[in-house]
Amino acid sequence: MKSLGILSAGLVFAAALGTVASGDDHVDPAVMKAVKARQAQMQLYAFNLGQLGAMAKGEVDYDAGAASAAAGNLAKLTSLNGRAVWLPGSDDATLGEDVTAALPAIWEEGSEIGDKAKALSMAAAEMESAAGDGLDALRGAIGDVGKSCGGCHEDYRRSDD
Amino acid sequence: MKSLGILSAGLVFAAALGTVASGDDHVDPAVMKAVKARQAQMQLYAFNLGQLGAMAKGEVDYDAGAASAAAGNLAKLTSLNGRAVWLPGSDDATLGEDVTAALPAIWEEGSEIGDKAKALSMAAAEMESAAGDGLDALRGAIGDVGKSCGGCHEDYRRSDD
Repeated sequence: MKSLGILSAGLVFAAALGTVASGDDHVDPAVMKAVKARQAQMQLYAFNLGQLGAMAKGEVDYDAGAASAAAGNLAKLTSLNGRAVWLPGSDDATLGEDVTAALPAIWEEGSEIGDKAKALSMAAAEMESAAGDGLDALRGAIGDVGKSCGGCHEDYRRSDD
Repeated sequence: MKSLGILSAGLVFAAALGTVASGDDHVDPAVMKAVKARQAQMQLYAFNLGQLGAMAKGEVDYDAGAASAAAGNLAKLTSLNGRAVWLPGSDDATLGEDVTAALPAIWEEGSEIGDKAKALSMAAAEMESAAGDGLDALRGAIGDVGKSCGGCHEDYRRSDD
């Protein structure tokens, strides 16, 4: 049982991280944890894409190693299995707009969310192949990554504009 | 330039996520973003390990598909390239204890952080192989994952106990 003791320490840590949010007292803690996890995943998408975008825009010098690292990370992150974080009933209409911007359409009949996710993951794989091959190759691949982010956000994320 | 426009929209989103934290006005925004990104990564470790731990402890029924998904995610997450998030100078002595619990020892001469990270990644790979093979196999693999979390936290994360 020693291993479970160590694990428990890890879970206490996890629980502590899960309570950072506020204004969500009405949400089932397990659902809230899933929402926070997918938001963390989006944050890591943005972080790694941000590294690549800064090079594409010339804000930082191109670095093949750093570009490959960021693109490799993005490829892994966009291929994570999402079943535990995209729980049915975790949309903004159910949980509240202060908790999530995920639209109910994600889970509705005819949702193309699976195709959108696959498009992102494929664009990230292309980026992973290209990122180390010079700035032009990186620039050539980044458009499809951005488009696949936007392609999903347009239909499935609430816009507050 | 259209693709960069789409990318910019993504980066605005990233920037918005990066401003959630408070009490860190004194920290370089680029460093803060890196700290937040590694904290998001830890949160995803904990989320996925939490799914496996709940099964190991019998809190939820064993489900081979869910276990494999969580373990596969953990294997990918623990093999992300960390160079952009573990920036030198992003320790708790430099940034403040309210910002991070990462100890300066991570970056000091003789640091074993690389070996610790590799141990976690290897334990997660073992878990990925085992998780779908039944509850006993999952239980057999989870101890090493927990130990490798703890092995790094003991030496390199500030304890507030």
